Amino acid sequence: MKLCRYGERNSEKPGLIDPEGQLRDLSSLYNDLSPENLAPHALARIAERDPTSFPLVHGTPRFGVPVSSVSKCVCIGLNYADHAAEAGLACPEEPIVFMKAPSALCGANDPTLIPPHATQMDWEVELGVIIGSTARFVSEESALDHVAGYCVFNDISERRFQMQSSQWDKGKGCDSFGPTGPFLVTADDVPDPQNLQLWLDVNGTRRQSGSTATMIFTVRQIIAYLSQYMTLLPGDIIATGTPPGVGMGHKPPLWLQEGDEVRLGIEGLGEQRQKLIRTAR
Amino acid sequence: MKLCRYGERNSEKPGLIDPEGQLRDLSSLYNDLSPENLAPHALARIAERDPTSFPLVHGTPRFGVPVSSVSKCVCIGLNYADHAAEAGLACPEEPIVFMKAPSALCGANDPTLIPPHATQMDWEVELGVIIGSTARFVSEESALDHVAGYCVFNDISERRFQMQSSQWDKGKGCDSFGPTGPFLVTADDVPDPQNLQLWLDVNGTRRQSGSTATMIFTVRQIIAYLSQYMTLLPGDIIATGTPPGVGMGHKPPLWLQEGDEVRLGIEGLGEQRQKLIRTAR
Repeated sequence: MKLCRYGERNSEKPGLIDPEGQLRDLSSLYNDLSPENLAPHALARIAERDPTSFPLVHGTPRFGVPVSSVSKCVCIGLNYADHAAEAGLACPEEPIVFMKAPSALCGANDPTLIPPHATQMDWEVELGVIIGSTARFVSEESALDHVAGYCVFNDISERRFQMQSSQWDKGKGCDSFGPTGPFLVTADDVPDPQNLQLWLDVNGTRRQSGSTATMIFTVRQIIAYLSQYMTLLPGDIIATGTPPGVGMGHKPPLWLQEGDEVRLGIEGLGEQRQKLIRTAR
Repeated sequence: MKLCRYGERNSEKPGLIDPEGQLRDLSSLYNDLSPENLAPHALARIAERDPTSFPLVHGTPRFGVPVSSVSKCVCIGLNYADHAAEAGLACPEEPIVFMKAPSALCGANDPTLIPPHATQMDWEVELGVIIGSTARFVSEESALDHVAGYCVFNDISERRFQMQSSQWDKGKGCDSFGPTGPFLVTADDVPDPQNLQLWLDVNGTRRQSGSTATMIFTVRQIIAYLSQYMTLLPGDIIATGTPPGVGMGHKPPLWLQEGDEVRLGIEGLGEQRQKLIRTAR
């Protein structure tokens, strides 16, 4: 199933994209796609219904983050072997873990707000993993049982902010730096999360192209690993790292500018499109 | 006012410590100390009531995190001049920003859970700042208007996890690594957040002793700074850095062990006490 939240920011409704690609309203079943409604039994309640029994939504509403009230967004750095090679860096021996402020998350097609003092805006297409049930000290074998679904994620970064101190979070956490969605595809509809093509275009030019097959740490490994340190809660989002082709990797580097358009997608998980605009103070 | 949340985890009730130090139940006014109930007008509704009109709570219930549903916990590294000197490091020119997973937050006196593979458990008494109203691009002059209150915060860290990669968040984000409270003291009762004594004892021996007067970046500066990057939301917690005396700073280093007891406090903001216990997988 493809599940989403649609409508204006902070008043999104739960929705489902039916097999014909039409948006349907799930409000009769759930008030929202809140973390507790991502639990296996809650998703099963949606799945057991005929999608056409939910009313069609007309028009082309905005997509919001496909889960409400995200309690944390954990990111994995340098997780693609070909990206590490491109950057001339050794593959990490353990996952590099950092956090994105949940206030940075936004809808898939929301504009990207360039902070007033930003100069090095960059992109990172990533496979997003949305947790459906609490994961604490889980094994790799059972790790995927805790996944509600997968989605497209753009780990937007301002590299100067990111590199100003040793800690990256500031350059990863600005408002609008985490487009998520447009929908989550439930785990049962993603037979192999390690075999998905990812791509990202800037102004129509292909900039990133990769496959989750070249991840250094698989989704299964990442979940098991993180769960040894911190409890993963329903609604938590994990951004699993980016394949080669970020702006920082070019010589000279390519930075996003006002007016640029970024499009990105993952096989079977839909597409995002963001326009870069300057933030007003 | 001193405001708290008391009771078992995930079923805390809102409370007030009255001028006689007695705990009173605020449930008649608010279901919870949720972020929206930290807004200035919401706090004013409590302040205008006679504290003795709220029912006394008997016994000695647990204290929870003094605000529910924290959306982010932003931490500032190396923010005390005397701590930087002790560590032999230059004072940072801009705040070092990292994030603590909200799932790490816990009540002031909850046990500290030592992860099974932890070997370098350390302590950090810090002034916690709890945001009461949205702060985005705010000036230093108006920054403190966005503070609901202040509290004691222990930025518990596992140094090996923290230093395993360049990014600290993993070693800062384990469950129970963020005791917060026991209560928040509303900003009107903290005349100068830059003149508060902080202390921390391990098994009765004083290990940290300092004053917020030696912060490199003041609370006012930190809020203004962060708000240039990310919107600070009601209920967000900022941990403002630690004074000298952490375990890592000793030669050889001192690490917390199972059975140890940590006590810490800040002038006017109360005390915390944590017992170190091993986590069961």
